[in-house]
Amino acid sequence: MERRGDAGAMPGEFSLIEQLFEPLAGPEGLSLQDDAAILSPRAGYDLVLTKDAIAEGRHYLLGDPAETIAKKLLRVNLSDLTAKGATPRGYLLSCAWSQETSFDWMRAFAEGLKEDQAAFDIALWGGDTIRLDGPSVFTLTALGEVPIGQMIQRGGAAPGDDLWVTGTLGDAALGLLIATGEFAGGTQADRDHLIGRYHIPEPPVTFGPHLRQVATAALDVSDGLLGDLEHLCRASKVGAEIVLEAVPLSRPMRACVGSVEAAFDYALTGGDDYQILFSASASVRRDIERYAAEAGAVVCRIGSVTNCVNEIEVVGPDGNPRPFARHGFRHF
Amino acid sequence: MERRGDAGAMPGEFSLIEQLFEPLAGPEGLSLQDDAAILSPRAGYDLVLTKDAIAEGRHYLLGDPAETIAKKLLRVNLSDLTAKGATPRGYLLSCAWSQETSFDWMRAFAEGLKEDQAAFDIALWGGDTIRLDGPSVFTLTALGEVPIGQMIQRGGAAPGDDLWVTGTLGDAALGLLIATGEFAGGTQADRDHLIGRYHIPEPPVTFGPHLRQVATAALDVSDGLLGDLEHLCRASKVGAEIVLEAVPLSRPMRACVGSVEAAFDYALTGGDDYQILFSASASVRRDIERYAAEAGAVVCRIGSVTNCVNEIEVVGPDGNPRPFARHGFRHF
Repeated sequence: MERRGDAGAMPGEFSLIEQLFEPLAGPEGLSLQDDAAILSPRAGYDLVLTKDAIAEGRHYLLGDPAETIAKKLLRVNLSDLTAKGATPRGYLLSCAWSQETSFDWMRAFAEGLKEDQAAFDIALWGGDTIRLDGPSVFTLTALGEVPIGQMIQRGGAAPGDDLWVTGTLGDAALGLLIATGEFAGGTQADRDHLIGRYHIPEPPVTFGPHLRQVATAALDVSDGLLGDLEHLCRASKVGAEIVLEAVPLSRPMRACVGSVEAAFDYALTGGDDYQILFSASASVRRDIERYAAEAGAVVCRIGSVTNCVNEIEVVGPDGNPRPFARHGFRHF
Repeated sequence: MERRGDAGAMPGEFSLIEQLFEPLAGPEGLSLQDDAAILSPRAGYDLVLTKDAIAEGRHYLLGDPAETIAKKLLRVNLSDLTAKGATPRGYLLSCAWSQETSFDWMRAFAEGLKEDQAAFDIALWGGDTIRLDGPSVFTLTALGEVPIGQMIQRGGAAPGDDLWVTGTLGDAALGLLIATGEFAGGTQADRDHLIGRYHIPEPPVTFGPHLRQVATAALDVSDGLLGDLEHLCRASKVGAEIVLEAVPLSRPMRACVGSVEAAFDYALTGGDDYQILFSASASVRRDIERYAAEAGAVVCRIGSVTNCVNEIEVVGPDGNPRPFARHGFRHF
């Protein structure tokens, strides 16, 4: 990890990396004072790499806690690895701090990473830190591994497959609106829960390795269920039918929103949940439920894959099409 | 590669990735429409990972050509791989574009990457692109490979080793001052040459694999020779003696600066050259010169490693200490 070009550094920042980030380095990585990390791939495994950035004012709010921003940064990448069926191993971090970022803020940021590293058994391998004349931007490259040839792709869904999602959907989108003051309903406890889902997504990371035993295609739900389902359908050259009532809603979401239609609207189009959408043969339903239970993940079967290429239909339990209005959720 | 959260996207930007970045994806990577890349490590090789960011107004100037910014981004990472003795294989790219960034600018940026991909035989494997309410920031993760256990580290220099550098030093630092109007001397051709060295560093990438046959320690010169030598000495628990007159200066540098003292000052303390500083046993001098010739790299022996831990001395050809004034180069 390098510290470059910080002529106007705060007092003590010279040892920023040493103080804050060295303790996060795993035994596998080199010293973070080095410019590069080394990785000895395990025989029989492919490496899966993913890279996502989050920016102040775009993927998080200026006043959000540093710890949760750090965790979100890590988890939006872990959700990608999970969807690939990969086991996370390590990550590289690039911090472009705004001029206003204090050392205490950085310390809290590193603390958030430390907690999540322990939770997900992953270590920091390297990266760099710079100062920026603008809002902060954090970029993370996460590496995971899968047995050779077993990475789950987006393009493997076949007509007749079931469609499943993990967790509940729409919580983060509503949480963002609550955090920005654009949504006023609900009890404080429910509102806090939903803001929490926006701040810290909960991708079912330990379910990933199970997923590769059963899923024909998968991806994380970052743009909203319908949007991401569209990606899956396009890559797999299939269509999909979603049973509206099967889409999982959290209790706090139902309670805050009041109208169940509005709740489904958030669940269908709201982004930032970082849960996993996947397809699997109907023959493995029991396996999926067993694996999910083993991994402590919640799964819901929400529909099926069709041969109507790129057509996505939302239906009721009776199979009749259900109109739905896009809620107009935006990633601010 | 993902495009996320671009509610206020320019017309046609939806297909940004498809139009600009898909053509850069190598056969090894998945489709960039996917969220992750897969890498099947070659048996017998370690992977070397490095990650460096460059930011508008900090590592490049707002008006710099998009092509050269893209090349600089790639090359500041390739220089790290080179210093490790690694052969570059692929990279992940994260673009956080300022709101002002036009599609044409992005196209030119992608064109710069394409040219350098061909020059260095490396492919784009994935990444993401976002919009930012601030100056652009680009982060790149480069991956290379070395035979297992052969990565060059910083900590292997031993007293008695020679110290070498590739290329010429100080050119980029002076080029930056010319580009910002802070240095007025020299002919237009020489000035353009030096600005070119600031815009597009020339790390001796093909020399990297040779380097691991001979170097006991290495790193790239990004912060200035003395600063980076300090890193090498600290990691190796040694000291160093540099013969001032042996430090390689380019002809345009000498011509522009006039005073040779000032030229050495740039060469000792100016950053951004992304050449390689390395140590090697005196017994392999001939090998180094032969390897350099094979790789088309220029190498200069500039001093030696001492046992005066963390002490760096600059001496004349007679071995007597030479005072030098830090030029006060700053990374702006």
